[in-house]
Amino acid sequence: MQHTHDAERRELPTHDLDADALADTWERLRTRAPLVQCLTNRVATALSANVLLAAGASPAMVDTPREARFFAGRADAVLVNLGTPTEESMQGIAEAVPGAVEAGTPWVLDPIGAGGLPWRSGIAQDLLGHRPTIIRGNASEVLGLGGGGGGRGADSTDRPESALPTARELAGRTGGAVAVSGEVDHLTDGERVVLLGHGHPWLTRVTGAGCALGALMAACSAVTEDPLLAAAAATAAYTLAAETSGATSCGPGSFVASLLDDLHLLEPEHLAGRVVL
Amino acid sequence: MQHTHDAERRELPTHDLDADALADTWERLRTRAPLVQCLTNRVATALSANVLLAAGASPAMVDTPREARFFAGRADAVLVNLGTPTEESMQGIAEAVPGAVEAGTPWVLDPIGAGGLPWRSGIAQDLLGHRPTIIRGNASEVLGLGGGGGGRGADSTDRPESALPTARELAGRTGGAVAVSGEVDHLTDGERVVLLGHGHPWLTRVTGAGCALGALMAACSAVTEDPLLAAAAATAAYTLAAETSGATSCGPGSFVASLLDDLHLLEPEHLAGRVVL
Amino acid sequence: MQHTHDAERRELPTHDLDADALADTWERLRTRAPLVQCLTNRVATALSANVLLAAGASPAMVDTPREARFFAGRADAVLVNLGTPTEESMQGIAEAVPGAVEAGTPWVLDPIGAGGLPWRSGIAQDLLGHRPTIIRGNASEVLGLGGGGGGRGADSTDRPESALPTARELAGRTGGAVAVSGEVDHLTDGERVVLLGHGHPWLTRVTGAGCALGALMAACSAVTEDPLLAAAAATAAYTLAAETSGATSCGPGSFVASLLDDLHLLEPEHLAGRVVL
Repeated sequence: MQHTHDAERRELPTHDLDADALADTWERLRTRAPLVQCLTNRVATALSANVLLAAGASPAMVDTPREARFFAGRADAVLVNLGTPTEESMQGIAEAVPGAVEAGTPWVLDPIGAGGLPWRSGIAQDLLGHRPTIIRGNASEVLGLGGGGGGRGADSTDRPESALPTARELAGRTGGAVAVSGEVDHLTDGERVVLLGHGHPWLTRVTGAGCALGALMAACSAVTEDPLLAAAAATAAYTLAAETSGATSCGPGSFVASLLDDLHLLEPEHLAGRVVL
Repeated sequence: MQHTHDAERRELPTHDLDADALADTWERLRTRAPLVQCLTNRVATALSANVLLAAGASPAMVDTPREARFFAGRADAVLVNLGTPTEESMQGIAEAVPGAVEAGTPWVLDPIGAGGLPWRSGIAQDLLGHRPTIIRGNASEVLGLGGGGGGRGADSTDRPESALPTARELAGRTGGAVAVSGEVDHLTDGERVVLLGHGHPWLTRVTGAGCALGALMAACSAVTEDPLLAAAAATAAYTLAAETSGATSCGPGSFVASLLDDLHLLEPEHLAGRVVL
Repeated sequence: MQHTHDAERRELPTHDLDADALADTWERLRTRAPLVQCLTNRVATALSANVLLAAGASPAMVDTPREARFFAGRADAVLVNLGTPTEESMQGIAEAVPGAVEAGTPWVLDPIGAGGLPWRSGIAQDLLGHRPTIIRGNASEVLGLGGGGGGRGADSTDRPESALPTARELAGRTGGAVAVSGEVDHLTDGERVVLLGHGHPWLTRVTGAGCALGALMAACSAVTEDPLLAAAAATAAYTLAAETSGATSCGPGSFVASLLDDLHLLEPEHLAGRVVL
């Protein structure tokens, strides 16, 4: 039951969201190697798994309705991403999410296309009722999930700051965190707000780069009870690695290979020393 | 209706197919960032999206039958590729194509396996009746689509020049362009013929490299009313980038990363200066 | 009929499993360019095709039930991998395997998740009855296939030497070879045992790296009648290339690009000179 998970969360001290807490979360991710079940889109599957592996987590793409619920009770975290939906993959998600909630497994919702595409907008609304630990999307998707606009395909047509009130409202409803990606990433749990301005423009020129960050947030949610800390640690690590990669690459192709290298090489002390909060 | 699209096309001046026209099309692609809906195979999905992003276009992999027709009316171009077909993905294509035709959205058909594999050969024939703006395939696929041979898996067993008469005949039937890939790419709209001899052998050692070129042709078809110019501009840009990448890479793995970099870096004036028509 | 295939195998001399035999198999793979039909998971599809292309084989991802059996009679080898199963992809496998057996086409089974996930464990058991030419898996999967444990997601929780008795028993039942991956790869045809200790830890940090090796084993099984030699030649080439890549890369992202380059560049004489048997 979600209640168990909430109760546990209340009993544990909430970390301050400073550089040390982010670095400590990153350290725990690398040490514990959480098993992350990914129900994600066809475009981002391989990159998401590779990001998890580079970070030290263990991905498992178990998404058939025949196994998804069973496995959600064994995984350390679950990622649900609504890109490239099929009837069967949506049934898999409909099995995995209650399985995660029942087991107290944290889960991340990435509502690709919410607001802009009717079918999956309805699915995203239904999933909201299961109170995702973290919601991750671009500004248009977060606005769409809150009942507003919706973007143009996978790209946002809104700025992240414009989605912050909706993000706070959604976080209030779910009891989790909401992360709005953009030039400056805006993250909130309804009360606290974290702004992170790292990253590189080539992140928007690599397909599935945002989806893979959602997978990394799921991995971090397995090693801290604070959803905002999980979302912020994943964002900080990913966007700091992207800064390094952007500075040493020639274009988006060499950038994505380098991003995996730099995530792999990112030590907790580098994260603590470089992140600007 | 297709009629609208045809009418618009007739009213606009036809560009001469010289280096400046190709460069101008490439420039417009980068400026306008067309939204390209891709209904494509599992193998080529990520590379196709990354090629579009590197070129400056905006990919959207919307292929569920529940959303494909709706979205084809909003996209700037549609790519239909018959690789790795499923029942559901073929239903998505059956929705998207009439949606594109009704909205006057240009669309590209990549008839992977046509002629060699019975199920999809039939589907390819049906799609021909919807008059694709551009058909892109290897020689065996174009011959197969015209009622002839058919290749061995994804590879062509015929030379592109042998498929030129069939390509001209198909272009006459559709009113669009047909692009036959090979060591020398052969492109025609039934009347004009363009030969482009750029590229690199490693393009045949990277899975989905041809499929991704089809996606780039779709993007170009959104920024010119001349299907042959769209196909030629995409081919020129892609194969010129491949030449650069081939000269600076160690093998097919570093080549594909470099190909995305070099597409991203390819300025219209480089294209104009280097292309041999 | 399987009988044909077995009969042919008996009539041909069995190569000794020395360095020259491995190099000779690698040479034949590069010369003959076998057509390998892959029915594999969504995560590993592109990498598997790229590994086959880098090695000089010709991949064809024909997995729809409508074409899988037809094509298994035309391909030179078939790869069956149980990752990311869908109802339709499992039907495709159920068509392809009897098609391969009837035509005497060698086929490889990669029983991803066997033992750990109930649905596909049952499917893997059924497929065993069709006597795969090669079974490839990590220790947990091979133990699971033999009726024992089962791992945690895609990762093994057992060491390869612990799975060797089960591997020998399975090879005895199928008449083929079984390859257990690990720090030291353990391969057997029930009688002979081959140990190969090449490779690099980053192979475990790249998604689908094991699955792609299964595809390469299928390619090798098309050019020798000795299943153990096919499995060993593929393993040697792949892990030797990985050693080179590991020594020249910065992390798992640059490693996988380099792995494709180094496979492409690996000459038979390098393989013969470097492999330790």
